[in-house]
Amino acid sequence: LTAAEPTAFRTTFLELHSWEQAQFFLGLEQAERLTLYTVLTASEVGNFFDDIDDDDQALPEFLAEMPSKFAAKMLTEMYTDNAVDILEHLDKGTINHLLAQMPQQSALDMRRLLHYEDETAGAIMTTEFIAIAADQTLAAAMVALRANAADAELIYYVYVLDQAQRLAGIISLRDLIVNDQQKMVQEIMNERVISVQVTDDQEEVAQTIRDYNFYAIPVTDDENRLLGIITVDDIIDVIDDEAASDYSGLAGVDVEDTSENPLKAAAKRLPWLVTLLFLGMSTASLINHYESLVSEASVLAVFISLITGTAGNAGTQSLAVAVRRLAFPDQARTFLSSLLAEMVTGVVTGLVTGVTITLVVGFWKHSFILGSVIGLAMCCAIIVANLAGSFIPGLMARLGFDPAVASGPFISTLSDLTSVLIYFSIAQYFVTSFVQH
Amino acid sequence: LTAAEPTAFRTTFLELHSWEQAQFFLGLEQAERLTLYTVLTASEVGNFFDDIDDDDQALPEFLAEMPSKFAAKMLTEMYTDNAVDILEHLDKGTINHLLAQMPQQSALDMRRLLHYEDETAGAIMTTEFIAIAADQTLAAAMVALRANAADAELIYYVYVLDQAQRLAGIISLRDLIVNDQQKMVQEIMNERVISVQVTDDQEEVAQTIRDYNFYAIPVTDDENRLLGIITVDDIIDVIDDEAASDYSGLAGVDVEDTSENPLKAAAKRLPWLVTLLFLGMSTASLINHYESLVSEASVLAVFISLITGTAGNAGTQSLAVAVRRLAFPDQARTFLSSLLAEMVTGVVTGLVTGVTITLVVGFWKHSFILGSVIGLAMCCAIIVANLAGSFIPGLMARLGFDPAVASGPFISTLSDLTSVLIYFSIAQYFVTSFVQH
Repeated sequence: LTAAEPTAFRTTFLELHSWEQAQFFLGLEQAERLTLYTVLTASEVGNFFDDIDDDDQALPEFLAEMPSKFAAKMLTEMYTDNAVDILEHLDKGTINHLLAQMPQQSALDMRRLLHYEDETAGAIMTTEFIAIAADQTLAAAMVALRANAADAELIYYVYVLDQAQRLAGIISLRDLIVNDQQKMVQEIMNERVISVQVTDDQEEVAQTIRDYNFYAIPVTDDENRLLGIITVDDIIDVIDDEAASDYSGLAGVDVEDTSENPLKAAAKRLPWLVTLLFLGMSTASLINHYESLVSEASVLAVFISLITGTAGNAGTQSLAVAVRRLAFPDQARTFLSSLLAEMVTGVVTGLVTGVTITLVVGFWKHSFILGSVIGLAMCCAIIVANLAGSFIPGLMARLGFDPAVASGPFISTLSDLTSVLIYFSIAQYFVTSFVQH
Repeated sequence: LTAAEPTAFRTTFLELHSWEQAQFFLGLEQAERLTLYTVLTASEVGNFFDDIDDDDQALPEFLAEMPSKFAAKMLTEMYTDNAVDILEHLDKGTINHLLAQMPQQSALDMRRLLHYEDETAGAIMTTEFIAIAADQTLAAAMVALRANAADAELIYYVYVLDQAQRLAGIISLRDLIVNDQQKMVQEIMNERVISVQVTDDQEEVAQTIRDYNFYAIPVTDDENRLLGIITVDDIIDVIDDEAASDYSGLAGVDVEDTSENPLKAAAKRLPWLVTLLFLGMSTASLINHYESLVSEASVLAVFISLITGTAGNAGTQSLAVAVRRLAFPDQARTFLSSLLAEMVTGVVTGLVTGVTITLVVGFWKHSFILGSVIGLAMCCAIIVANLAGSFIPGLMARLGFDPAVASGPFISTLSDLTSVLIYFSIAQYFVTSFVQH
């Protein structure tokens, strides 16, 4: 298709939505892509490059295979935030080489954005916004808007600057259109602008945009100068990443690898598995310590996995709630009060589960003493696992670590250790009562 | 504040952003809220009710405490989708009573939206969009837009209808402003409209909006008549809910309960814990079956929790990837090919972990036969757990169940059973070789 009739192809291709163009592009072989670069202009390619997910591993490869002038032009035509997302994946030499071939202003903008730390407002903002002066009529503002609309990423909000280029107000395009065109901008602008600081964490920005249902939010420096805007589509990516990271924390696996090749996937999972294996060895040596007890009452072995498994499940539940609570803080609860609440939950679930298993084991093994040992051990193990699941992520967050490090498997493996310790301590105390022969 | 100087309060309050007004309102006592309803108009109250999270449990209570005329007026002033979200929480009698006091058109719109099934495009769309005819100039369209802009939820996209009220095209406000005002709408409108069907699942809608980076998407019936639009802020809620449900699936707990009281939390977690306890009993009775083997070689008890724990961890990792893959399907992989990939991953992780533990146990217990038994059992248990974690959610999805039902704790508990079976079968076969005395 690409080779035979370039003009017909161009027409069909350009009728597609840019996201569909991107999907088509991603399905091509290298030879076909090289042809594509000759059929389309840099600006047309940049248009759909804006719609390629910036996590895509192949982006640097695409850039490398383009003539470098074409690549520089294409990046200039993209929205600055997306172009910078691509540049971040390249080495320093390539970045400088590309920036050198761009118009000065674009290169300057990108160089500035490249400096902001990852995961801050500055790193995800774009510089293509519309700013106007306060002392003009709406009609004059509309003329300014028309002139700049084509380049802006979102024209729904128009930002009003004072003489010192500080953010003085905001007008929605709706207000600009609906009001009498002879009114002055400063009359109708909203002076209570909700903005974020360029150094703010991207998750705070996401939370603000969600709370206020904004389509975009202005980003300012500490002197309230407008540096850029962050649009809601970038925030959706942040929310996704955040959810994915909570999720992988719970599973002890980097879930970005859904389409990874199986060997790479194994390489990513093994460090976790082997670390936990060695942590699990401490449980094994604890049981080893009680081996004489087990050989005396081998029935104890029957319930090891039941007690560790149930406590692990309870710990995972409480961990999930704790991590979620850290992501969406609840003003009404302090760390201590949620720990206390978790303890009450642990005692209740522990008691119910403990009594249930006491009865089941009591009838099954015709020994309510054995049943009570299992039940008591399970109750205590659940309470401890619940507390650990709730306490550890909170502690990590307080110490400045990522709470997701306290992953689900880690909590389960840790709770195996405490459960076994509780189980055999209790069993040892009562063993003479239920071993008759 | 509220009681003393109503006028001063009004001025201060109305200067706040509607989300801040909502937060203030949610912090009031009932008596204060009742005063507030007299100080503010129904339309002013409706304005910030749009910003109260529709999951808020207190919404029906707020509506009940308002004079019913006031409540009806307020709901009319809200965006239809948000008003309907509130109505859904009320009983039929109250709904009818409120709808009866609304203007006919609003009542009709809401009644229609109430009929759409939960979690479909129809249930989350709003009917406040801007639609214009194709055969007019842009200048005339701008006049129509000005007249309707105040009521629309989002005016960034203007929808173009043909004579039969079918969706014929779309114009962004940007194009409307930038182009020559004497051009005809049909000349510049985009005829390739990406839309969703009213019966589509909300997750499909979310995916489309994310892929295309839209701020809103039109919703049509099967004859392409425009029924409503879905805006990106509603989609953020869908994405959040979806992430929360995947997350709770992995943990076996409803994580919506982060601020629940501890007894309610216990009541929610217990069904899971007790169900899994009974599933765990099958593992216990399996070990019971091998009790004579354990009393003969009590060293076997030492490694039960290590093998079940490690296999459980591996199963959780593979489950997380599988659930994630179902949420973001990968065209390049079929169900079978991802199962195969997971098997390769399982064999590699199983072999590495197995060899590691063989060496550790071999040196620790001075018996490489025992080490090999543990290693072999662990390798097999990991492969089986990996396959189960990958296969079960896919199977559930194919059978039409929610794959999140195959939660993390469920997979771990199931893998306990298979791991123990594998472990003791292998151990029984070799027991004579490592038990000398």
